[in-house]
Amino acid sequence: MDFQHCFALWPKLTPAQQQWVLDTLITRRVPRGTVVHQGGVECTGLVLLKSGQLRAFILSPEGREITLYRLFSMDLCLFSAACMMNSLQFTVTLQAEKDTELWIIPAEVYRDLMAVSPAAANYANEIMATRFTEVMWLMEQVMWKSMDKRVAAFLLEESAIEDSLQLHTTHETIANHLGTHREVVTRMLRYLQGEGLVRLSRGVVEILDPVRLRDYADQE
Amino acid sequence: MDFQHCFALWPKLTPAQQQWVLDTLITRRVPRGTVVHQGGVECTGLVLLKSGQLRAFILSPEGREITLYRLFSMDLCLFSAACMMNSLQFTVTLQAEKDTELWIIPAEVYRDLMAVSPAAANYANEIMATRFTEVMWLMEQVMWKSMDKRVAAFLLEESAIEDSLQLHTTHETIANHLGTHREVVTRMLRYLQGEGLVRLSRGVVEILDPVRLRDYADQE
Repeated sequence: MDFQHCFALWPKLTPAQQQWVLDTLITRRVPRGTVVHQGGVECTGLVLLKSGQLRAFILSPEGREITLYRLFSMDLCLFSAACMMNSLQFTVTLQAEKDTELWIIPAEVYRDLMAVSPAAANYANEIMATRFTEVMWLMEQVMWKSMDKRVAAFLLEESAIEDSLQLHTTHETIANHLGTHREVVTRMLRYLQGEGLVRLSRGVVEILDPVRLRDYADQE
Repeated sequence: MDFQHCFALWPKLTPAQQQWVLDTLITRRVPRGTVVHQGGVECTGLVLLKSGQLRAFILSPEGREITLYRLFSMDLCLFSAACMMNSLQFTVTLQAEKDTELWIIPAEVYRDLMAVSPAAANYANEIMATRFTEVMWLMEQVMWKSMDKRVAAFLLEESAIEDSLQLHTTHETIANHLGTHREVVTRMLRYLQGEGLVRLSRGVVEILDPVRLRDYADQE
Protein backbone atom coordinates (compact mmCIF):
# COMPACT_ATOMS: atom_id res chain seq x y z
CA MET A 1 0.00 0.00 0.00
CA ASP A 2 1.50 3.32 -0.95
CA PHE A 3 1.18 6.67 0.76
CA GLN A 4 -1.32 8.13 -1.71
CA HIS A 5 -3.79 5.34 -0.99
CA CYS A 6 -3.48 5.49 2.79
CA PHE A 7 -3.78 9.26 2.99
CA ALA A 8 -7.49 9.99 2.58
CA LEU A 9 -6.87 13.69 2.03
CA TRP A 10 -4.74 13.04 -1.05
CA PRO A 11 -7.40 13.41 -3.80
CA LYS A 12 -8.58 16.69 -2.25
CA LEU A 13 -5.20 18.37 -2.58
CA THR A 14 -4.12 20.34 -5.63
CA PRO A 15 -1.29 18.84 -7.74
CA ALA A 16 1.09 21.47 -6.32
CA GLN A 17 0.07 20.60 -2.75
CA GLN A 18 0.46 16.89 -3.48
CA GLN A 19 3.96 17.47 -4.81
CA TRP A 20 4.87 19.55 -1.77
CA VAL A 21 3.68 16.79 0.58
CA LEU A 22 5.66 14.16 -1.34
CA ASP A 23 8.79 16.35 -1.34
CA THR A 24 8.70 16.84 2.44
CA LEU A 25 7.36 13.43 3.45
CA ILE A 26 9.43 11.53 6.00
CA THR A 27 9.43 7.74 6.14
CA ARG A 28 10.48 6.16 9.41
CA ARG A 29 10.91 2.59 10.55
CA VAL A 30 10.92 2.10 14.31
CA PRO A 31 11.47 -1.09 16.28
CA ARG A 32 9.00 -2.22 18.91
CA GLY A 33 9.28 -0.19 22.10
CA THR A 34 10.43 3.04 20.45
CA VAL A 35 8.88 6.23 21.77
CA VAL A 36 7.78 7.89 18.53
CA HIS A 37 6.40 11.06 20.02
CA GLN A 38 6.37 12.73 23.38
CA GLY A 39 3.78 15.48 23.45
CA GLY A 40 4.97 18.82 24.70
CA VAL A 41 8.57 17.96 23.90
CA GLU A 42 8.71 17.77 20.15
CA CYS A 43 6.44 18.57 17.26
CA THR A 44 6.28 15.46 15.15
CA GLY A 45 3.68 16.34 12.55
CA LEU A 46 0.90 14.36 10.99
CA VAL A 47 1.77 10.70 11.44
CA LEU A 48 0.36 7.92 9.29
CA LEU A 49 0.88 4.26 10.02
CA LYS A 50 2.07 2.17 7.10
CA SER A 51 2.30 -0.96 9.22
CA GLY A 52 2.69 -1.94 12.83
CA GLN A 53 0.95 -0.67 15.94
CA LEU A 54 1.22 2.39 18.17
CA ARG A 55 -0.09 3.08 21.64
CA ALA A 56 -0.99 6.57 22.85
CA PHE A 57 -0.88 7.03 26.60
CA ILE A 58 -0.53 9.58 29.37
CA LEU A 59 1.76 9.39 32.37
CA SER A 60 1.07 10.32 35.97
CA PRO A 61 3.64 12.30 37.98
CA GLU A 62 4.55 8.98 39.63
CA GLY A 63 5.03 7.22 36.30
CA ARG A 64 1.71 5.37 36.12
CA GLU A 65 0.28 5.02 32.62
CA ILE A 66 -3.11 4.74 30.98
CA THR A 67 -3.67 3.93 27.33
CA LEU A 68 -5.81 6.51 25.54
CA TYR A 69 -6.08 4.75 22.20
CA ARG A 70 -4.16 2.56 19.79
CA LEU A 71 -3.27 3.00 16.15
CA PHE A 72 -3.07 0.21 13.64
CA SER A 73 -1.61 -0.25 10.20
CA MET A 74 -3.04 1.21 7.03
CA ASP A 75 -6.50 2.27 7.96
CA LEU A 76 -5.52 4.32 10.97
CA CYS A 77 -3.85 7.66 10.77
CA LEU A 78 -3.07 10.00 13.58
CA PHE A 79 -2.70 13.52 14.68
CA SER A 80 0.34 14.00 16.87
CA ALA A 81 1.07 17.61 16.24
CA ALA A 82 -0.26 19.57 19.16
CA CYS A 83 2.09 22.37 18.17
CA MET A 84 0.01 22.85 15.02
CA MET A 85 -2.83 24.04 17.19
CA ASN A 86 -2.37 26.57 19.94
CA SER A 87 -5.30 25.26 21.92
CA LEU A 88 -4.25 21.62 22.10
CA GLN A 89 -2.19 21.50 25.24
CA PHE A 90 -1.71 18.14 26.74
CA THR A 91 1.02 15.60 26.75
CA VAL A 92 0.49 12.32 24.97
CA THR A 93 3.24 9.75 24.49
CA LEU A 94 3.24 7.48 21.45
CA GLN A 95 5.10 4.21 21.63
CA ALA A 96 5.46 1.44 19.06
CA GLU A 97 3.88 -1.78 20.30
CA LYS A 98 5.18 -3.63 17.27
CA ASP A 99 7.85 -2.91 14.68
CA THR A 100 6.25 -0.02 12.86
CA GLU A 101 6.62 1.90 9.62
CA LEU A 102 5.47 5.50 9.59
CA TRP A 103 4.91 8.31 7.18
CA ILE A 104 5.27 11.74 8.73
CA ILE A 105 4.10 14.97 7.18
CA PRO A 106 6.13 17.63 9.01
CA ALA A 107 4.06 19.87 11.26
CA GLU A 108 4.99 23.09 9.45
CA VAL A 109 3.94 21.61 6.11
CA TYR A 110 0.58 20.45 7.40
CA ARG A 111 0.00 23.70 9.26
CA ASP A 112 0.54 25.65 6.04
CA LEU A 113 -1.79 23.29 4.17
CA MET A 114 -4.49 23.81 6.80
CA ALA A 115 -4.19 27.57 6.37
CA VAL A 116 -5.12 27.44 2.70
CA SER A 117 -7.07 24.20 2.20
CA PRO A 118 -10.46 23.74 3.89
CA ALA A 119 -10.17 20.02 3.08
CA ALA A 120 -6.88 19.75 5.01
CA ALA A 121 -8.32 21.67 7.97
CA ASN A 122 -11.46 19.53 8.01
CA TYR A 123 -9.41 16.36 7.71
CA ALA A 124 -7.45 17.37 10.82
CA ASN A 125 -10.78 18.09 12.44
CA GLU A 126 -12.10 14.62 11.68
CA ILE A 127 -8.95 12.94 13.00
CA MET A 128 -9.10 14.97 16.20
CA ALA A 129 -12.81 14.19 16.55
CA THR A 130 -12.04 10.47 16.23
CA ARG A 131 -9.42 10.68 18.99
CA PHE A 132 -11.70 12.84 21.14
CA THR A 133 -14.45 10.23 20.77
CA GLU A 134 -12.06 7.47 21.83
CA VAL A 135 -10.95 9.44 24.87
CA MET A 136 -14.57 10.12 25.82
CA TRP A 137 -15.30 6.42 25.54
CA LEU A 138 -12.36 5.80 27.87
CA MET A 139 -13.64 8.47 30.26
CA GLU A 140 -16.97 6.67 30.45
CA GLN A 141 -15.20 3.37 31.11
CA VAL A 142 -13.04 4.89 33.83
CA MET A 143 -15.97 6.68 35.46
CA TRP A 144 -18.76 4.15 35.29
CA LYS A 145 -17.20 0.70 34.81
CA SER A 146 -15.65 -1.37 37.56
CA MET A 147 -12.07 -2.55 37.06
CA ASP A 148 -12.99 -6.24 36.72
CA LYS A 149 -15.21 -5.42 33.70
CA ARG A 150 -12.46 -3.25 32.22
CA VAL A 151 -9.89 -6.05 32.57
CA ALA A 152 -12.30 -8.46 30.86
CA ALA A 153 -12.92 -5.97 28.00
CA PHE A 154 -9.18 -5.35 27.63
CA LEU A 155 -8.42 -9.08 27.31
CA LEU A 156 -11.03 -9.37 24.56
CA GLU A 157 -9.61 -6.33 22.77
CA GLU A 158 -6.11 -7.80 22.91
CA SER A 159 -7.43 -11.12 21.69
CA ALA A 160 -9.05 -9.41 18.69
CA ILE A 161 -5.87 -7.46 17.88
CA GLU A 162 -3.64 -10.53 18.12
CA ASP A 163 -6.24 -12.89 16.66
CA SER A 164 -5.46 -15.39 19.41
CA LEU A 165 -6.92 -16.58 22.71
CA GLN A 166 -3.39 -16.95 24.11
CA LEU A 167 -2.22 -13.51 25.20
CA HIS A 168 1.48 -13.08 25.87
CA THR A 169 1.37 -10.24 28.33
CA THR A 170 2.14 -9.44 31.94
CA HIS A 171 -0.08 -8.15 34.71
CA GLU A 172 2.13 -5.05 34.77
CA THR A 173 1.45 -4.38 31.08
CA ILE A 174 -2.30 -4.74 31.55
CA ALA A 175 -2.13 -2.40 34.54
CA ASN A 176 -0.29 0.19 32.41
CA HIS A 177 -2.99 0.04 29.78
CA LEU A 178 -5.79 0.48 32.29
CA GLY A 179 -4.16 3.06 34.56
CA THR A 180 -4.17 0.91 37.66
CA HIS A 181 -1.72 -1.06 39.83
CA ARG A 182 -0.37 -4.50 39.02
CA GLU A 183 -1.77 -5.92 42.26
CA VAL A 184 -5.28 -4.86 41.23
CA VAL A 185 -4.95 -6.59 37.87
CA THR A 186 -3.62 -9.75 39.49
CA ARG A 187 -6.62 -9.83 41.84
CA MET A 188 -9.07 -9.32 38.95
CA LEU A 189 -7.41 -11.98 36.78
CA ARG A 190 -7.51 -14.48 39.64
CA TYR A 191 -11.19 -13.75 40.06
CA LEU A 192 -11.80 -14.32 36.33
CA GLN A 193 -9.80 -17.56 36.57
CA GLY A 194 -11.97 -18.66 39.50
CA GLU A 195 -15.01 -18.08 37.29
CA GLY A 196 -13.51 -20.33 34.61
CA LEU A 197 -13.19 -17.50 32.08
CA VAL A 198 -9.39 -17.41 31.79
CA ARG A 199 -6.38 -19.55 32.69
CA LEU A 200 -3.22 -17.90 34.02
CA SER A 201 0.30 -19.11 33.56
CA ARG A 202 3.70 -17.45 33.49
CA GLY A 203 3.58 -14.57 30.98
CA VAL A 204 0.35 -15.87 29.44
CA VAL A 205 -3.32 -15.17 29.93
CA GLU A 206 -5.46 -17.67 28.07
CA ILE A 207 -9.10 -16.88 27.37
CA LEU A 208 -11.09 -20.07 27.93
CA ASP A 209 -14.59 -18.82 27.20
CA PRO A 210 -14.70 -15.66 25.06
CA VAL A 211 -18.52 -15.62 24.89
CA ARG A 212 -19.01 -15.64 28.66
CA LEU A 213 -16.10 -13.19 29.06
CA ARG A 214 -17.87 -10.79 26.66
CA ASP A 215 -21.12 -11.12 28.64
CA TYR A 216 -19.19 -10.40 31.80
CA ALA A 217 -17.46 -7.35 30.32
CA ASP A 218 -20.73 -5.92 28.99
CA GLN A 219 -22.60 -6.09 32.30
CA GLU A 220 -23.50 -2.71 33.74
CA MET B 1 -21.03 43.34 23.64
CA ASP B 2 -22.37 42.50 20.22
CA PHE B 3 -22.04 39.29 18.26
CA GLN B 4 -19.37 40.56 15.87
CA HIS B 5 -17.02 41.29 18.79
CA CYS B 6 -17.57 37.99 20.58
CA PHE B 7 -17.16 35.87 17.48
CA ALA B 8 -13.40 35.71 16.85
CA LEU B 9 -13.86 34.29 13.38
CA TRP B 10 -15.82 37.35 12.20
CA PRO B 11 -12.99 39.38 10.64
CA LYS B 12 -11.81 36.34 8.71
CA LEU B 13 -15.11 35.86 6.88
CA THR B 14 -15.93 37.50 3.57
CA PRO B 15 -18.67 40.17 3.60
CA ALA B 16 -21.06 37.68 1.95
CA GLN B 17 -20.28 35.03 4.59
CA GLN B 18 -20.74 37.60 7.36
CA GLN B 19 -24.14 38.56 5.98
CA TRP B 20 -25.15 34.91 5.72
CA VAL B 21 -24.20 34.29 9.35
CA LEU B 22 -26.15 37.35 10.50
CA ASP B 23 -29.20 36.34 8.44
CA THR B 24 -29.34 32.86 9.97
CA LEU B 25 -28.15 33.69 13.50
CA ILE B 26 -30.44 32.59 16.30
CA THR B 27 -30.56 34.41 19.63
CA ARG B 28 -31.84 32.45 22.60
CA ARG B 29 -32.43 33.34 26.22
CA VAL B 30 -32.68 30.36 28.57
CA PRO B 31 -33.45 30.34 32.29
CA ARG B 32 -31.18 28.59 34.74
CA GLY B 33 -31.60 24.83 34.64
CA THR B 34 -32.54 24.61 30.96
CA VAL B 35 -30.96 21.78 29.00
CA VAL B 36 -29.63 23.65 25.98
CA HIS B 37 -28.25 20.69 24.12
CA GLN B 38 -28.37 16.95 24.42
CA GLY B 39 -25.71 15.39 22.24
CA GLY B 40 -26.89 12.67 19.93
CA VAL B 41 -30.45 13.91 20.09
CA GLU B 42 -30.38 17.23 18.32
CA CYS B 43 -27.91 19.21 16.28
CA THR B 44 -27.71 22.61 17.85
CA GLY B 45 -24.95 24.29 15.91
CA LEU B 46 -22.14 26.55 16.95
CA VAL B 47 -23.15 28.09 20.27
CA LEU B 48 -21.69 31.33 21.62
CA LEU B 49 -22.37 32.59 25.11
CA LYS B 50 -23.42 36.20 25.34
CA SER B 51 -23.89 36.01 29.09
CA GLY B 52 -24.54 33.43 31.76
CA GLN B 53 -22.94 30.05 32.37
CA LEU B 54 -23.25 26.58 30.89
CA ARG B 55 -22.11 23.21 32.16
CA ALA B 56 -21.18 20.34 29.85
CA PHE B 57 -21.49 16.89 31.38
CA ILE B 58 -21.90 13.21 30.60
CA LEU B 59 -24.38 10.83 32.19
CA SER B 60 -23.88 7.24 33.28
CA PRO B 61 -26.51 4.58 32.46
CA GLU B 62 -27.62 4.92 36.11
CA GLY B 63 -27.96 8.70 35.86
CA ARG B 64 -24.69 9.69 37.54
CA GLU B 65 -23.07 12.81 36.15
CA ILE B 66 -19.59 14.25 35.72
CA THR B 67 -18.84 17.78 34.58
CA LEU B 68 -16.52 17.90 31.55
CA TYR B 69 -16.11 21.66 31.35
CA ARG B 70 -17.98 24.91 31.88
CA LEU B 71 -18.61 27.81 29.58
CA PHE B 72 -18.76 31.43 30.65
CA SER B 73 -20.00 34.66 29.19
CA MET B 74 -18.30 36.59 26.41
CA ASP B 75 -14.89 35.12 26.11
CA LEU B 76 -15.97 31.52 25.87
CA CYS B 77 -17.59 30.00 22.86
CA LEU B 78 -18.46 26.43 22.26
CA PHE B 79 -18.75 23.66 19.80
CA SER B 80 -21.94 21.67 20.31
CA ALA B 81 -22.52 20.36 16.85
CA ALA B 82 -21.30 16.79 16.73
CA CYS B 83 -23.53 16.31 13.70
CA MET B 84 -21.22 18.67 11.81
CA MET B 85 -18.48 16.08 12.08
CA ASN B 86 -19.02 12.45 11.31
CA SER B 87 -16.27 11.31 13.62
CA LEU B 88 -17.42 13.10 16.77
CA GLN B 89 -19.66 10.55 18.36
CA PHE B 90 -20.32 11.01 21.99
CA THR B 91 -23.14 12.40 24.01
CA VAL B 92 -22.62 15.60 25.94
CA THR B 93 -25.41 17.42 27.73
CA LEU B 94 -25.29 21.20 28.09
CA GLN B 95 -27.26 22.79 30.89
CA ALA B 96 -27.56 26.45 31.90
CA GLU B 97 -26.15 26.98 35.40
CA LYS B 98 -27.32 30.60 35.34
CA ASP B 99 -29.82 32.53 33.23
CA THR B 100 -28.02 32.55 29.93
CA GLU B 101 -28.14 34.34 26.59
CA LEU B 102 -26.88 32.48 23.55
CA TRP B 103 -26.10 33.07 19.95
CA ILE B 104 -26.44 30.00 17.78
CA ILE B 105 -25.06 29.61 14.27
CA PRO B 106 -27.13 26.74 12.83
CA ALA B 107 -25.14 23.57 12.18
CA GLU B 108 -25.85 23.48 8.45
CA VAL B 109 -24.64 27.07 8.06
CA TYR B 110 -21.41 26.44 9.92
CA ARG B 111 -20.83 23.16 8.13
CA ASP B 112 -21.11 24.92 4.78
CA LEU B 113 -18.74 27.65 5.99
CA MET B 114 -16.19 25.04 7.04
CA ALA B 115 -16.34 23.47 3.59
CA VAL B 116 -15.19 26.65 1.87
CA SER B 117 -13.32 28.68 4.49
CA PRO B 118 -10.05 27.35 5.97
CA ALA B 119 -10.44 29.98 8.70
CA ALA B 120 -13.83 28.59 9.73
CA ALA B 121 -12.52 25.02 9.70
CA ASN B 122 -9.45 25.97 11.73
CA TYR B 123 -11.58 27.95 14.18
CA ALA B 124 -13.71 24.83 14.80
CA ASN B 125 -10.44 22.96 15.19
CA GLU B 126 -9.19 25.36 17.86
CA ILE B 127 -12.46 25.21 19.78
CA MET B 128 -12.45 21.42 19.71
CA ALA B 129 -8.79 21.38 20.76
CA THR B 130 -9.66 23.60 23.74
CA ARG B 131 -12.43 21.23 24.84
CA PHE B 132 -10.22 18.21 24.23
CA THR B 133 -7.53 19.77 26.43
CA GLU B 134 -10.07 20.36 29.20
CA VAL B 135 -11.29 16.78 29.00
CA MET B 136 -7.69 15.49 29.12
CA TRP B 137 -7.09 17.64 32.21
CA LEU B 138 -10.17 16.06 33.74
CA MET B 139 -8.94 12.59 32.76
CA GLU B 140 -5.69 13.25 34.59
CA GLN B 141 -7.59 14.44 37.67
CA VAL B 142 -9.85 11.39 37.63
CA MET B 143 -6.96 8.99 37.10
CA TRP B 144 -4.25 10.35 39.35
CA LYS B 145 -5.87 12.61 41.95
CA SER B 146 -7.63 11.36 45.06
CA MET B 147 -11.20 12.52 45.59
CA ASP B 148 -10.38 14.69 48.63
CA LYS B 149 -7.98 16.78 46.50
CA ARG B 150 -10.55 17.00 43.71
CA VAL B 151 -13.22 18.25 46.16
CA ALA B 152 -10.80 20.88 47.45
CA ALA B 153 -9.94 22.00 43.90
CA PHE B 154 -13.62 22.13 42.96
CA LEU B 155 -14.47 24.35 45.94
CA LEU B 156 -11.71 26.78 44.92
CA GLU B 157 -12.93 26.78 41.31
CA GLU B 158 -16.49 27.54 42.45
CA SER B 159 -15.18 30.26 44.73
CA ALA B 160 -13.34 31.87 41.81
CA ILE B 161 -16.42 31.68 39.55
CA GLU B 162 -18.75 33.14 42.18
CA ASP B 163 -16.13 35.51 43.58
CA SER B 164 -17.13 34.49 47.11
CA LEU B 165 -15.91 32.23 49.89
CA GLN B 166 -19.52 31.34 50.74
CA LEU B 167 -20.66 28.68 48.29
CA HIS B 168 -24.37 28.01 48.07
CA THR B 169 -24.30 24.43 46.92
CA THR B 170 -25.28 20.96 48.06
CA HIS B 171 -23.19 17.84 48.50
CA GLU B 172 -25.33 16.26 45.77
CA THR B 173 -24.41 19.04 43.34
CA ILE B 174 -20.71 18.70 44.08
CA ALA B 175 -20.99 14.93 43.61
CA ASN B 176 -22.62 15.47 40.19
CA HIS B 177 -19.77 17.71 39.11
CA LEU B 178 -17.12 15.24 40.18
CA GLY B 179 -18.79 12.04 39.07
CA THR B 180 -19.03 10.49 42.51
CA HIS B 181 -21.64 9.73 45.17
CA ARG B 182 -23.06 12.26 47.62
CA GLU B 183 -21.88 10.19 50.58
CA VAL B 184 -18.30 10.37 49.35
CA VAL B 185 -18.47 14.18 49.05
CA THR B 186 -19.99 14.47 52.53
CA ARG B 187 -17.14 12.41 53.97
CA MET B 188 -14.51 14.52 52.18
CA LEU B 189 -16.12 17.81 53.24
CA ARG B 190 -16.25 16.66 56.88
CA TYR B 191 -12.59 15.79 56.66
CA LEU B 192 -11.78 19.25 55.24
CA GLN B 193 -13.88 20.79 58.03
CA GLY B 194 -11.92 18.78 60.60
CA GLU B 195 -8.74 20.26 59.14
CA GLY B 196 -10.13 23.78 59.60
CA LEU B 197 -10.23 24.47 55.86
CA VAL B 198 -14.00 24.82 55.43
CA ARG B 199 -17.13 25.26 57.55
CA LEU B 200 -20.30 23.38 56.64
CA SER B 201 -23.84 24.55 57.27
CA ARG B 202 -27.18 23.83 55.61
CA GLY B 203 -26.82 24.49 51.88
CA VAL B 204 -23.55 26.38 52.36
CA VAL B 205 -19.88 25.46 52.22
CA GLU B 206 -17.72 28.27 53.53
CA ILE B 207 -14.03 28.32 52.67
CA LEU B 208 -12.16 29.42 55.80
CA ASP B 209 -8.59 29.28 54.55
CA PRO B 210 -8.26 29.48 50.75
CA VAL B 211 -4.45 29.46 50.84
CA ARG B 212 -4.18 26.26 52.83
CA LEU B 213 -7.02 24.73 50.79
CA ARG B 214 -5.03 25.48 47.61
CA ASP B 215 -1.93 23.85 49.08
CA TYR B 216 -4.03 20.84 50.00
CA ALA B 217 -5.58 20.59 46.51
CA ASP B 218 -2.20 20.86 44.80
CA GLN B 219 -0.51 18.07 46.76
CA GLU B 220 0.38 15.07 44.65
